[in-house]
Amino acid sequence: MLVVMKKGSTQEDLAGVIGKITQSGLAGHISQGVERTVIGVVGQTYPELRDILEFLPGVEEVIPISKPYKLSSREFQHEDTRIKVGDVVIGGEELVIIAGPCAVETENQVLATARAVKEAGANKPSTSPYQFRGLGKEGLEILALARAETGLPLITEVLTPHDVELVARYADILQIGARNMQNFALLDEVGKVKNPVMLKRGMSATIQEWLLSAEYILSQGNRQVMLCERGIRSFDTYTRNTMDISAIPVVKKLSHLPIIADPSHGTGKWYLVAPLALAAVAAGADGLMIEVHPNPDQALKDGAQSLTFDSFQQLMSQLAPVASSVQRKLPAKPGDKVDQ
Amino acid sequence: MLVVMKKGSTQEDLAGVIGKITQSGLAGHISQGVERTVIGVVGQTYPELRDILEFLPGVEEVIPISKPYKLSSREFQHEDTRIKVGDVVIGGEELVIIAGPCAVETENQVLATARAVKEAGANKPSTSPYQFRGLGKEGLEILALARAETGLPLITEVLTPHDVELVARYADILQIGARNMQNFALLDEVGKVKNPVMLKRGMSATIQEWLLSAEYILSQGNRQVMLCERGIRSFDTYTRNTMDISAIPVVKKLSHLPIIADPSHGTGKWYLVAPLALAAVAAGADGLMIEVHPNPDQALKDGAQSLTFDSFQQLMSQLAPVASSVQRKLPAKPGDKVDQ
Amino acid sequence: MLVVMKKGSTQEDLAGVIGKITQSGLAGHISQGVERTVIGVVGQTYPELRDILEFLPGVEEVIPISKPYKLSSREFQHEDTRIKVGDVVIGGEELVIIAGPCAVETENQVLATARAVKEAGANKPSTSPYQFRGLGKEGLEILALARAETGLPLITEVLTPHDVELVARYADILQIGARNMQNFALLDEVGKVKNPVMLKRGMSATIQEWLLSAEYILSQGNRQVMLCERGIRSFDTYTRNTMDISAIPVVKKLSHLPIIADPSHGTGKWYLVAPLALAAVAAGADGLMIEVHPNPDQALKDGAQSLTFDSFQQLMSQLAPVASSVQRKLPAKPGDKVDQ
Amino acid sequence: MLVVMKKGSTQEDLAGVIGKITQSGLAGHISQGVERTVIGVVGQTYPELRDILEFLPGVEEVIPISKPYKLSSREFQHEDTRIKVGDVVIGGEELVIIAGPCAVETENQVLATARAVKEAGANKPSTSPYQFRGLGKEGLEILALARAETGLPLITEVLTPHDVELVARYADILQIGARNMQNFALLDEVGKVKNPVMLKRGMSATIQEWLLSAEYILSQGNRQVMLCERGIRSFDTYTRNTMDISAIPVVKKLSHLPIIADPSHGTGKWYLVAPLALAAVAAGADGLMIEVHPNPDQALKDGAQSLTFDSFQQLMSQLAPVASSVQRKLPAKPGDKVDQ
Repeated sequence: MLVVMKKGSTQEDLAGVIGKITQSGLAGHISQGVERTVIGVVGQTYPELRDILEFLPGVEEVIPISKPYKLSSREFQHEDTRIKVGDVVIGGEELVIIAGPCAVETENQVLATARAVKEAGANKPSTSPYQFRGLGKEGLEILALARAETGLPLITEVLTPHDVELVARYADILQIGARNMQNFALLDEVGKVKNPVMLKRGMSATIQEWLLSAEYILSQGNRQVMLCERGIRSFDTYTRNTMDISAIPVVKKLSHLPIIADPSHGTGKWYLVAPLALAAVAAGADGLMIEVHPNPDQALKDGAQSLTFDSFQQLMSQLAPVASSVQRKLPAKPGDKVDQ
Repeated sequence: MLVVMKKGSTQEDLAGVIGKITQSGLAGHISQGVERTVIGVVGQTYPELRDILEFLPGVEEVIPISKPYKLSSREFQHEDTRIKVGDVVIGGEELVIIAGPCAVETENQVLATARAVKEAGANKPSTSPYQFRGLGKEGLEILALARAETGLPLITEVLTPHDVELVARYADILQIGARNMQNFALLDEVGKVKNPVMLKRGMSATIQEWLLSAEYILSQGNRQVMLCERGIRSFDTYTRNTMDISAIPVVKKLSHLPIIADPSHGTGKWYLVAPLALAAVAAGADGLMIEVHPNPDQALKDGAQSLTFDSFQQLMSQLAPVASSVQRKLPAKPGDKVDQ
Repeated sequence: MLVVMKKGSTQEDLAGVIGKITQSGLAGHISQGVERTVIGVVGQTYPELRDILEFLPGVEEVIPISKPYKLSSREFQHEDTRIKVGDVVIGGEELVIIAGPCAVETENQVLATARAVKEAGANKPSTSPYQFRGLGKEGLEILALARAETGLPLITEVLTPHDVELVARYADILQIGARNMQNFALLDEVGKVKNPVMLKRGMSATIQEWLLSAEYILSQGNRQVMLCERGIRSFDTYTRNTMDISAIPVVKKLSHLPIIADPSHGTGKWYLVAPLALAAVAAGADGLMIEVHPNPDQALKDGAQSLTFDSFQQLMSQLAPVASSVQRKLPAKPGDKVDQ
Repeated sequence: MLVVMKKGSTQEDLAGVIGKITQSGLAGHISQGVERTVIGVVGQTYPELRDILEFLPGVEEVIPISKPYKLSSREFQHEDTRIKVGDVVIGGEELVIIAGPCAVETENQVLATARAVKEAGANKPSTSPYQFRGLGKEGLEILALARAETGLPLITEVLTPHDVELVARYADILQIGARNMQNFALLDEVGKVKNPVMLKRGMSATIQEWLLSAEYILSQGNRQVMLCERGIRSFDTYTRNTMDISAIPVVKKLSHLPIIADPSHGTGKWYLVAPLALAAVAAGADGLMIEVHPNPDQALKDGAQSLTFDSFQQLMSQLAPVASSVQRKLPAKPGDKVDQ
């Protein structure tokens, strides 16, 4: 943390700042420039200190220089984190393809979709119970059926701290939705279970805020966190959100955590899903999350952004050469030879 | 809802759209323009219908024309909603001044602040237990003490659905924070209690999304909802948030609900609190929420945006003439004559 | 400028950075923290140096600490700049009210408006020739007529470097529109004339970028620059722009230049003009720019945001008490006693 | 254009709206819903009509339904526009790679870069004279030398209407920078010359505004317009801009004009250039614009976002398989067989 003093600040101001720093158990290192004096704060600072110092007379600005996250930082851990779920490894050479309906409507819809995406090469179905909380536990049981039949692991959104335990019993991966990225009571709870967590980026969260939320989960003891870019809010309204593809290489640089891209929510329009999925993989994403529905035009939720089975299959075949261009590969399909 | 057909869409496309509308129990009214055909959907539509219709062949765009909120709309209720809390009326001629510490630190801090703000003319202390969940119930009890001594009503943030019942027993008004504006599980719960609710605007929520969240609470049966503008996220980083003063007259036009302004969180800097507070009242706000702390430079949270007792008192005296310029008045102070 | 070295950067990296700093004629002051080394750059730095240093091996981040503007900074000049145009002083106790049509349509429209706004107490008509370049010089002559008859000074937008000389001959104040805030070829030219310049904020310009554009004009020798806040682009689409009222006290703190508010363009809706005008003055604006039109519903441009003569007059009478609440006053009206 | 009447609007209001529509030479088609009346405006509307109608009593909202651009729309022209510059075709199967220094510094720098990028397979050098206007005509002559020696066509930014003629004599393609996207005086001029124009997206321009600026050039008679996505302004500050990769498939859907991606300006950081370049091509871009400099750490401008010759060459070899995954190919390199 650096404290920049105002032009014309007095020796008394300087002494006041140094006093407050010392009082906090830290040391202040004065550096006299031509125009300004800067004080380097040496020791383990804490966020509130910034506000406190900024308030003192003679202080122009306080600049934090340590990144506020550690456990999620690549400086802390050089190698990529890999998360194992059943036979699937997230964050390795093989891309992870999470495909499925956005919401549980009926047993038939879920099972048909699970079979189709498995056939096309996805390794996981997904669902968000949001609009269908009525189904609740019943919805989870339908999903469990699909898992039992297809062997595909299950990812499900959890909405309140109270539900974490129940959902963790059924789902392989817990998803924190964009709206809950800073719901710290919920982050607390998922930080205490053993299931891997997928943390979606808040609609207007900076990359740093996103990593701080990941940090929050990691610091509770759960080290199996993956991130998911799903579009940010911008001034343009043509797409529902603006997919921030650049966040993918930025996260890869700053953090060792795996990052997934969700072009379905990221664009809100089915015809943009394939180009953005290809772009995300080209930019270095560790996987994709894609909405698939047997009959998107009859879906009760998010039909406009869902792919049909056919268009999902087509996307998978376009994806293979792009993946191999960036030294990644698609998951093996059911019929593939083992040695692929 | 209006369905705009593509140039060059076919009669078959048109029949498909009309069929889907009819199948949903609604009627379609075709209007043939020179360049395009537009179908008006007559009857009670629902949000998902938009996605479904947008997906059909030949459809260019679907435009919702009814506002998606009703209970919170001024079309639904012409007169301003007034909310009574003890002797205080929110939404009337008298402005409501909510002032207090952002967080409960000690009994002394809370009581000293409550006395000071009461002296200066506020009608309520506020607090957010966020960073201090450790204090939990104890924090609520300290606040209850302040209420008992000063007679000032109490507003407190509630963070999870599970806490609603407890907090509702201590606090007069429940606050939903900006991060929880779309936490529907929490909105559900506060919609079921009798306490008035103050709904803060999400950092990147449109005014329409904000009113939809209010609608959600209203539709659970709780009609005592007030809104609170606390700054939105923009590209500028000089202030923590960008206080959207124009939201105040916009909300007044669209809705009958009272609206409060929070220039402390809205700017993040104490020296901007007073000018923005005056601006908010000039623009028609029904009240203000102001952070006050006996020693802002020692506050554990949000010190940089807190006013001292003195600067709060000064703001109150600047505020009086601005309020009367727009036909509002400040709450009577303890020593004021009753007939004021 | 501070150079923050990466954790784990080598002595060689450090030497490289110090070498580059020395080579640029500056000195580097090393400060060793527990986690990181920070180098303070002492001497007169320049913006490109940041990019150059950031590129060197071992460098984590380069943080500029001097503000990049000087002439426009309040550190450079403590007292408020006051700009005199005829009898009007901009930046003094008296507010400046710039009112008039957005575009020259006919001689009648301009003269009628000039008379009406003068009657109501404005001190200047404004116009932007934009959509009406066809009128060109003829438009300027119509405006000159209005000035001759009413004595009101004239402000006109200038669009290209080539037009500066002509417009400067007719107009008292040259306006740089939001779209041209970073048109440096144009800023160059207006920096060389004697007329005061009103610099509108770009739609997505940070306050710092805005002050840098002012700096650019000031550095050409023209010290009569005033700023105009006219709304920024945000994610919300209810209003055309989001009026950034907080920019007013921020600019007042950072700079000595006068600042005007334009709630007509800032909101795009006539019924929001009055509340935002009152808010701007309450927050410390030195004046207002308001679109007024004899028949807004027949205006060829920006009718939806123009006030009628009646509603303008009403705004002026609401404004007076708000102005006096913040120790400002309205310009004297034609019939007012001299000693007011 | 659709006029939505307020709930509770009167027959008189309706008659007023119809009257104004008829008076404008158009027809109004009334459609009575359960809650609201909607009037379809039939005939060739114009943008100002919206403001005029929105102003009338009883009108809730006016919704434009025709897209405001025509010449640039894919509805107007189904086939992709292809622009021929010397031997290069922009918008065809072969990607166009525009690589070069951001600014002319010295003859050596320009020639060395031109040779290196040609060797690596680019088909054009680029430059922006911005910071180096001092060089002016001399800069253009250095670029002309590079063109003469390498045969690479030349693209140069033009900054004022007055310079268009001169720059058009030297450059093959005229570039309109992001800051000038709505400088209509400049768009006018480039609309009248024969050179192809590359129109960069404004920092906070919606896709519709961008296409409207293209429309403006096209409507002056110049049909050789290509677009360039170079990042938009968002709330995140880690990258200089937020590269909007989704704009690429959106533009491809809405328009027949070619679209180029500029990941150098789009990210501002050299280590993000390659991943975003790959992503842009995967998403369907017709080409790339890349800053290359012999010694980025000594560049006078934008060094931090420039690639070295080596990293540019490496990008080109990564790019080839991604391009072929989406049925595109790189330009043939000097030594390649003709039949490739």
